[in-house]
Amino acid sequence: MSAPKKVVLAYSGGLDTSIILKWLQTEYGCEVVTFTADLGQGEELEPARKKAEMLGIRPENIYIEDLREEFVRDFVFPMMRANALYEGLYLLGTSIARPLISKRLVEIAAMTGADAVAHGATGKGNDQVRFELSAYALNPEIKVIAPWRLWSLTSRTKLLEFAEANQIPIAKDKRGEAPFSVDANLLHTSSEGKVLENPGEEAPDYVYQRTVHPEDAPDAPEMVEITFEKGDAVAIDGVAMSPAAILTRLNELGGKHGVGRLDLVENRFVGMKSRGIYETPGGTILLEAHRGIEQITLDSGAGHLKDSIMPRYAELIYNGFWFSPEREMLQALIDKSQEHVTGTVRVKLYKGLARTVARWSDRSLYSEAHVTFEEDAGAYDQKDAQGFIQLNALRLKLIASRNRRLKG
Amino acid sequence: MSAPKKVVLAYSGGLDTSIILKWLQTEYGCEVVTFTADLGQGEELEPARKKAEMLGIRPENIYIEDLREEFVRDFVFPMMRANALYEGLYLLGTSIARPLISKRLVEIAAMTGADAVAHGATGKGNDQVRFELSAYALNPEIKVIAPWRLWSLTSRTKLLEFAEANQIPIAKDKRGEAPFSVDANLLHTSSEGKVLENPGEEAPDYVYQRTVHPEDAPDAPEMVEITFEKGDAVAIDGVAMSPAAILTRLNELGGKHGVGRLDLVENRFVGMKSRGIYETPGGTILLEAHRGIEQITLDSGAGHLKDSIMPRYAELIYNGFWFSPEREMLQALIDKSQEHVTGTVRVKLYKGLARTVARWSDRSLYSEAHVTFEEDAGAYDQKDAQGFIQLNALRLKLIASRNRRLKG
Amino acid sequence: MSAPKKVVLAYSGGLDTSIILKWLQTEYGCEVVTFTADLGQGEELEPARKKAEMLGIRPENIYIEDLREEFVRDFVFPMMRANALYEGLYLLGTSIARPLISKRLVEIAAMTGADAVAHGATGKGNDQVRFELSAYALNPEIKVIAPWRLWSLTSRTKLLEFAEANQIPIAKDKRGEAPFSVDANLLHTSSEGKVLENPGEEAPDYVYQRTVHPEDAPDAPEMVEITFEKGDAVAIDGVAMSPAAILTRLNELGGKHGVGRLDLVENRFVGMKSRGIYETPGGTILLEAHRGIEQITLDSGAGHLKDSIMPRYAELIYNGFWFSPEREMLQALIDKSQEHVTGTVRVKLYKGLARTVARWSDRSLYSEAHVTFEEDAGAYDQKDAQGFIQLNALRLKLIASRNRRLKG
Amino acid sequence: MSAPKKVVLAYSGGLDTSIILKWLQTEYGCEVVTFTADLGQGEELEPARKKAEMLGIRPENIYIEDLREEFVRDFVFPMMRANALYEGLYLLGTSIARPLISKRLVEIAAMTGADAVAHGATGKGNDQVRFELSAYALNPEIKVIAPWRLWSLTSRTKLLEFAEANQIPIAKDKRGEAPFSVDANLLHTSSEGKVLENPGEEAPDYVYQRTVHPEDAPDAPEMVEITFEKGDAVAIDGVAMSPAAILTRLNELGGKHGVGRLDLVENRFVGMKSRGIYETPGGTILLEAHRGIEQITLDSGAGHLKDSIMPRYAELIYNGFWFSPEREMLQALIDKSQEHVTGTVRVKLYKGLARTVARWSDRSLYSEAHVTFEEDAGAYDQKDAQGFIQLNALRLKLIASRNRRLKG
Repeated sequence: MSAPKKVVLAYSGGLDTSIILKWLQTEYGCEVVTFTADLGQGEELEPARKKAEMLGIRPENIYIEDLREEFVRDFVFPMMRANALYEGLYLLGTSIARPLISKRLVEIAAMTGADAVAHGATGKGNDQVRFELSAYALNPEIKVIAPWRLWSLTSRTKLLEFAEANQIPIAKDKRGEAPFSVDANLLHTSSEGKVLENPGEEAPDYVYQRTVHPEDAPDAPEMVEITFEKGDAVAIDGVAMSPAAILTRLNELGGKHGVGRLDLVENRFVGMKSRGIYETPGGTILLEAHRGIEQITLDSGAGHLKDSIMPRYAELIYNGFWFSPEREMLQALIDKSQEHVTGTVRVKLYKGLARTVARWSDRSLYSEAHVTFEEDAGAYDQKDAQGFIQLNALRLKLIASRNRRLKG
Repeated sequence: MSAPKKVVLAYSGGLDTSIILKWLQTEYGCEVVTFTADLGQGEELEPARKKAEMLGIRPENIYIEDLREEFVRDFVFPMMRANALYEGLYLLGTSIARPLISKRLVEIAAMTGADAVAHGATGKGNDQVRFELSAYALNPEIKVIAPWRLWSLTSRTKLLEFAEANQIPIAKDKRGEAPFSVDANLLHTSSEGKVLENPGEEAPDYVYQRTVHPEDAPDAPEMVEITFEKGDAVAIDGVAMSPAAILTRLNELGGKHGVGRLDLVENRFVGMKSRGIYETPGGTILLEAHRGIEQITLDSGAGHLKDSIMPRYAELIYNGFWFSPEREMLQALIDKSQEHVTGTVRVKLYKGLARTVARWSDRSLYSEAHVTFEEDAGAYDQKDAQGFIQLNALRLKLIASRNRRLKG
Repeated sequence: MSAPKKVVLAYSGGLDTSIILKWLQTEYGCEVVTFTADLGQGEELEPARKKAEMLGIRPENIYIEDLREEFVRDFVFPMMRANALYEGLYLLGTSIARPLISKRLVEIAAMTGADAVAHGATGKGNDQVRFELSAYALNPEIKVIAPWRLWSLTSRTKLLEFAEANQIPIAKDKRGEAPFSVDANLLHTSSEGKVLENPGEEAPDYVYQRTVHPEDAPDAPEMVEITFEKGDAVAIDGVAMSPAAILTRLNELGGKHGVGRLDLVENRFVGMKSRGIYETPGGTILLEAHRGIEQITLDSGAGHLKDSIMPRYAELIYNGFWFSPEREMLQALIDKSQEHVTGTVRVKLYKGLARTVARWSDRSLYSEAHVTFEEDAGAYDQKDAQGFIQLNALRLKLIASRNRRLKG
Repeated sequence: MSAPKKVVLAYSGGLDTSIILKWLQTEYGCEVVTFTADLGQGEELEPARKKAEMLGIRPENIYIEDLREEFVRDFVFPMMRANALYEGLYLLGTSIARPLISKRLVEIAAMTGADAVAHGATGKGNDQVRFELSAYALNPEIKVIAPWRLWSLTSRTKLLEFAEANQIPIAKDKRGEAPFSVDANLLHTSSEGKVLENPGEEAPDYVYQRTVHPEDAPDAPEMVEITFEKGDAVAIDGVAMSPAAILTRLNELGGKHGVGRLDLVENRFVGMKSRGIYETPGGTILLEAHRGIEQITLDSGAGHLKDSIMPRYAELIYNGFWFSPEREMLQALIDKSQEHVTGTVRVKLYKGLARTVARWSDRSLYSEAHVTFEEDAGAYDQKDAQGFIQLNALRLKLIASRNRRLKG
C-alpha cells in the first residue's frame, strides 16, 4: 500500500484518536479530515471540533454530524425486525454502529478527495473487521489505516510520551489506565477488558453505567405500551415518535428499571473468546415487544423461517458483513415478513425484567373462535386431527414396521 | 379401526380421565388398564389407585410409577443440552413430557397384551399429536383412542350427566368449570384457556401457581452455583445430586424468586395460535446456566452450528416428533458438542431475574493470554488481522468493483 | 361442509374428469363450470370444449385458457432462480403447475359466483394437497371437492359402469387400465404407478415419452447458448424469446438428445414413498445453464446462502405451499440475489448429458487478475493468506491446547 | 516464528517440492524429513525415495506410505454418506485429501521430533488453508512453513536457476511451463490454471486425463450393481471389496464410460473465483448409487435434514475444517442416519451418464401396499387426507381471512 495523501479519521476527540490524528500527520505527512458522529453515545461533540482545530485541522476538514436518526432507522430497526441475538443473548449494540461510521467515512472521503480512511480499533477485536469490511464494500479502492496494527506505540507510557511530544493535551484522569474499555451509542454501552478479563469473577458494580442496579430500581412496576407498524416501533404510550426518540425514551425507562444487563463470554470473529458487560435497556424492551407483536401478527411458517435464519443474520452483523449480498438477501426475507407486524404491546418493567403482558392488533392472526375451549361454532372440526395425525405418523409407522421386521 | 379389546389409559385419577375410563368400558366393552405416572406434577398418586379400583379396574391392571428421574435424565436434560426454546421463548415443558408417557403406555400395552392405548387430550391441541406420534413410532400396530375426538360428550353438562349416570364421584369444585386449564410436571406448569383467551388482556395474578410474583420475591438476591458435566447439571452449590433432585431444588429456588414466568402466544402444530402462561422456574435457571458454561467451554464453530439447528430441534419436540429419526440425528449432533461442557456457573436470582454472573472450568477455551488488553507475550500477532481482513474483504471488493464498472 | 351450489372443475376432457363432472351434477345437483388450461401438456383443448358441451355444460361456463406464458414466467422461472431440486434430484415439474391451476379455479369461481372448486387428484398423492392449500390460501371460504376421496367409484369397473350409465363416451384405449399414470406440462412429463411400482425393477423403455433414449440420440454433440437477465433466460443462441418459447425450444433440444430423465423414489408429503419417472428435458438444460451463469456472476456469500435454503424452498413447493408467507419470503431472498445474474452460458448436449462448457458476462465477478498462476501485478498479496489462516486457526489451536492440557 | 530445527515436508518427488526441500535446508539450515504418500494419484513412489536420498535426506528420514485404504475408508466414505457437493456440483476430490496428508505430517513430526511441517501449496489457493488448519488442529504448537508465501523464487526462471544452482535434476518436460496445474488422488483429478483461466473458453480436450471423452466411450451401456452397508459401499456386482478396491474399480468403469467430468467456476475460501476441470469417475457413480439406496432406506425426515445441512458440511470440507468440532458434529448427525442405508443399487453407465435404474433392500421403507394405484387392502385411508389438508391449510386460511378483513 502506498502512503495515503489525505485521510478521513473517525475522531472522537479523546486522547487515543488525537494521538492517531497526530501520528497520521507525522507518519505520512498527509492531510487529515476528522469525522465525529453523534450516535447517541452521550458526549458533546463541539469539544471534538475545538480539539481538532487545535491539532491543526482546517475548519473545512472537520465533519461533525448527528447520525442518531439514521442509526436507529436504517440500522437498529432493520436488525430488530429479525429479533437478532448473537450467540443467543447479545443484542449487537457495537456491531450495528460500525457500518454506519464506515459509510460516512467513505462518503466524506469521496467528498473531500481523500484516498484513505483511518480508525482507532485495535488488532485484536471485531471492530477493525467491521470498519474495514464496510469500507471496502463501499469503495474497493479506499485505503484503510489501522494505526494500532502499525505503530510502535505499544504501551501506555509510549502513547503518553508521544502525546506530550506532540502537544496533545492529556486529561488528568487519562494519565492512569482506565479499569476497563467502553463503547457506547444509542443502543447500548459495552464494557470489557482489565477488571473484566476473568469470567470467573463477578463484574464490579461500578462497571454498569447506563442502568441502575435492579436492586436499586423502583419497587413498583411500570407499564409501557409500544406500537409497531410493519415491524418498526412508531409510538410509545400512544404518542408517535421518531426512531431515535423512541429508542431514547425506552432507554430512559429501561435504565430506570435496571433492564437489559448482560454478562457474556462471546466468540470474536478473530478467533478468541472475550468477556463483555452489555447494557441495552431500550433495545431489550424493544426486542421483547417486537416478539410480542409478532406472536399475534406473524404466521408460524413465516416465524419459524425467520427463527431459523436469525443466528446466521446475527453472525453476519457481528462479523462485520452488514454491506454484503447475503445480509441484504436475509434482510429482504425478513422485511417481507413484516408487512403485517402492526399493533401494540404492553410490557411490564420491574427490577430488571421486561415482560410482555398483553398485545393486540387489527392484523392479528389469533382466532379465539378456533382456539377456544368453549363451543367454537364449527370453526374447527376436531375430527380433522385424526387424519392429520395419521398422515404425519405414516412414515414413523413405516420405520417402526421396518425395524420390527428386521428384529423379528 | 376395529374395536379395541384391551386399552391402556393414561389416567390421572381426575374427573375427566375417570369419565374416559368408564366411557371406554361402556363404548367398547373392553378391559381397561390404567397408567398413572409421577412426573413431578405435585399430586399424590395413591388416590388414583383407589379411584381406579372403585371404577372396577383389577389391581393387576393398575400401573402407578414414579418416572421423575427418567423424565429429567432422558428427556429434560438432553433437551437442555440444545438450549431448546420454541419460538424463541418457550421451554417446552409440556411437549417434553408426552413422549415418555406414550413410551410407558406402549410398554405397558406390550406387557399386558393390550391392543390399544387411550389419552385424554382434546382434538384442538398439540398433545394429541405428541401422544399419538410417539405411540405409533414405538408400535406401528397399536390403536390409539382419543375419546375427545370421538364421543358426543361435547359440553360440561353432558360430561357431568355421564359421570353421574356411571357413579363417578364428582368433587365439589369440579361442578363448575375451571377458569383455565392446567398441565404440570417437574419442568413446568402451563395454564391456558378461558380467562386467558384474550391475549390483549393481562393474565390475572391467580393464574400463577408455582412462582411467587416477582414483586413478592425476597428483596435480597440469592446466588446459586450449578456444576455441569458433559452438558448435564450434576451438582448444586457443590453438592452432587440426581437429575430429578437438581431440578426439584432449582424449582424451589426459582419459585421463591419469581423466576421463569412467560406469557406467550404460540403457534400450535394443528394450525391455530394459542395463548399460554408458563412457569418454568428451575428450567429457566438451568438454561441460563447451561448457556453460561457453554460460553467458556464450547468453541464458536460448535456453538453457532448448535444455534442454527436449535429452532428445528425445538419445533420437532413441540410438534411431537421426539421419537423420529431427525430428532435423534440432531441429538447426536448436540450430544457430540457436549463432551467438554463441564464446569460451574454462578447464577444470581432476584425478583424474577436469573442471570449468569460468573463461570469457570478446567475445560475453558477462554484465553486471557489472547484477549487481554495488556501485553500478551506474543500469544496473538495483531498483524495477522491485516491478512484476515484483506481476504475476507476480497469478494466484497470484487463486487464493489463490478458494480462501479457497470455504473461507470 | 354444506353441499356446493356451483362448482368450478379442473377439467381435462378425459374420461376421469368427465366422470367427475357428471358425478358433481348428480351428487350435488349443482351447476358445473369447467376450466381447461393449456400448460403445455401437448394436447389440444378444443375437444375438451366439445365434450363439456356434450355433458351439458353451458357455453358461458366453459373456460379454456392458454396459460403457458404465465406458467413459465411466474412459476417455472422464479423456481429456476433458486436452482430448486427436491430431494437432490427432482425438478418439481408437477408440483409447480398446481398452484397456477388452483389460482385460476379460484379466480373463475369469483367471476362466476361459484362457491366451490373440484379437482381429480386422488387421496394418496401430493396433488390434492397442492390444489387445496393453494385454493384455501387464495380464498379461505372456498369449498374444495375431491371426488376421489368421497365417492364409491373405487374400482375401474365401477367407474366404467358409471360412465356408461351417464352416457359418457369411453375411448377404446381407456377400456383397459393404463399401464401407468402420466402428468405433463411444459416443464415435464411424469409417469408413475402400475408397472413402475417396484423400484427394484427397471422402468420399461416405453414409459419414456418426451425424450429419446440416449442410445438413440444423435452421435454428434450439439451446443446451445442461453442468455440470462437477472436470473431468467431471455434468449437462445442470441435470439430473444418469450419464457414459454424458450422452454419449448429447450424441450426440443433436450428431447432430441435424451436429456433430463430421472428415475426416482421420492417421499410424498402424505407420508409414503413413491417411484416416479420424470422427463424434464428443457428444465434440466435450464438448471445447468443457470448454475453456469451464477458461477461467474454470483458472490460466494450469496450463493452459499441460496444453497443452504434451497432444500427448504423446494420442499415448500413440493408440499404445496407456493402461496405461503415462507415461500414468498424465500423468494424475496432469492430474487434479491439475481440482480446481476446476467450473461450467457454455452451448454453441450450429448446422449443424455447437458454440461456447461463456457460462460461469460459483463457482470462477471471472476477476476483472472486475482486467480492467475502468472504474475498478478499486485492484485493479491500472498502474504495476506498467512494472517487469514492464523486467525481462522486460532480457535482450533485453543481447542487442541485445551485437549492436550486435559490429557497431559 | 523462530526458525524451524527439523521439518517434515510433504514431498512428491517432483521438481517443485525438490526445490522446496533444498530451500528449507539452505534457508533454515534445518534437518528435513520427507513424507510421500500414495493416495491413488497414479504415480510410483520409489523414485521419490531415490530423489530424496540424492538430495541428502537420510534414509530414516524418508517416509513413504500407502494411504489409499485409510483415505477412502476414513475420509471419502464418511463424506459420501453426506452426499456432499460443494456449490451444487463439486465432489471435493482435492479438499478431502488434504486433512489426511496433514494428519500424517503431524504424526511423523511427533515420531521424528520435528518442530515444523512444510507444504508446497501456493498463497492463492485453498490447499494452504486446508493443510494448515488441519495441522494446527492436531498440534497447536507445530510450525507450518509455506515456502511459496515466503521465498523470492517468484518466477519460473528463478525456480530453474535455484534448481540448477543446487544440483536438482530437471526433467526435460519441466523446462517449459505446464499448460495447466494438476492434482490427483484416488477420488479425482483436477486441472486448473493457464489455458483454463478464461471460463468463457471451452477447456481443450487434452486437459482430461482420467476419463475418455463421452463421444469415445463404448456405444453399449454397462450396468454396475453397488451394495451398501450402513451407508458405505461394500461390494460391486456382488463381490465384496475393500474401500480402496471399490473406488478403484468404479474409477475404471467410470473412466471407460466418460463419467464424472465437471467444468466449474467455484468460489475459493480465500475470496476469488477459480475455474477448475474435475474428473471424478468413481465418485460420481458412488454418489448416484448412494442417493439411490437412500431413496428407499432413508426416511423423509432424516433425508430432508441431511439435505439441509449438506451445503454447510461440504463448505467445511472445502474450506479446510475437516478437523473441527462442527464437522465432527455434522458427521455424527449424518452417521446416525445411515444405520439402515443398506441394500443394492443398479447404475447404468453410458457416454458420460451414470443413472440409477433400480434399487432394492431388506431395509426398504418403500411400501407398495401404501402407494399402489390398485386396491390397497386398507393400508391407507384416503379420508385421512382430508384432515391432513384441513389442518395444514388452517394457518393459510387465517392469513387469507385477515388479509380480506383488512381490504374489506
